[in-house]
Amino acid sequence: MEQQQLNVKGMSCGHCVNAIEGSVGKLEGVQSVKVDLNKGLVDVSFEAEKVSLAQIKETIEEQGYDVQ
Amino acid sequence: MEQQQLNVKGMSCGHCVNAIEGSVGKLEGVQSVKVDLNKGLVDVSFEAEKVSLAQIKETIEEQGYDVQ
Repeated sequence: MEQQQLNVKGMSCGHCVNAIEGSVGKLEGVQSVKVDLNKGLVDVSFEAEKVSLAQIKETIEEQGYDVQ
Repeated sequence: MEQQQLNVKGMSCGHCVNAIEGSVGKLEGVQSVKVDLNKGLVDVSFEAEKVSLAQIKETIEEQGYDVQ
């Protein structure tokens, strides 16, 4: 299991939290995802054999946010 | 047909626009609803015999926003 903390720009409200937690949480191999809206952080735990960090970042970007 | 412009606080992103336009737009008697995110304004046209301004404001507040 890997853990990563991503800086994400553009998250502004509860809908954004749901959009990111929902989409990333659905990826196979992602065990948990938690958004800290005030800090602009996304904490994600995942199995690197099943899903890559690049795929996770891409999923967040597809929702309209910038991963730093 | 009546037209009203409401000042609404707390709208921060496209999800907020969708939440307000979707919920207000579903009210019977509402002909159109348009959110200006940058200005914090909601323009709504409605038939006052079918829906009251109070109901429209309440619907926006139920979505988590403050109508000024």
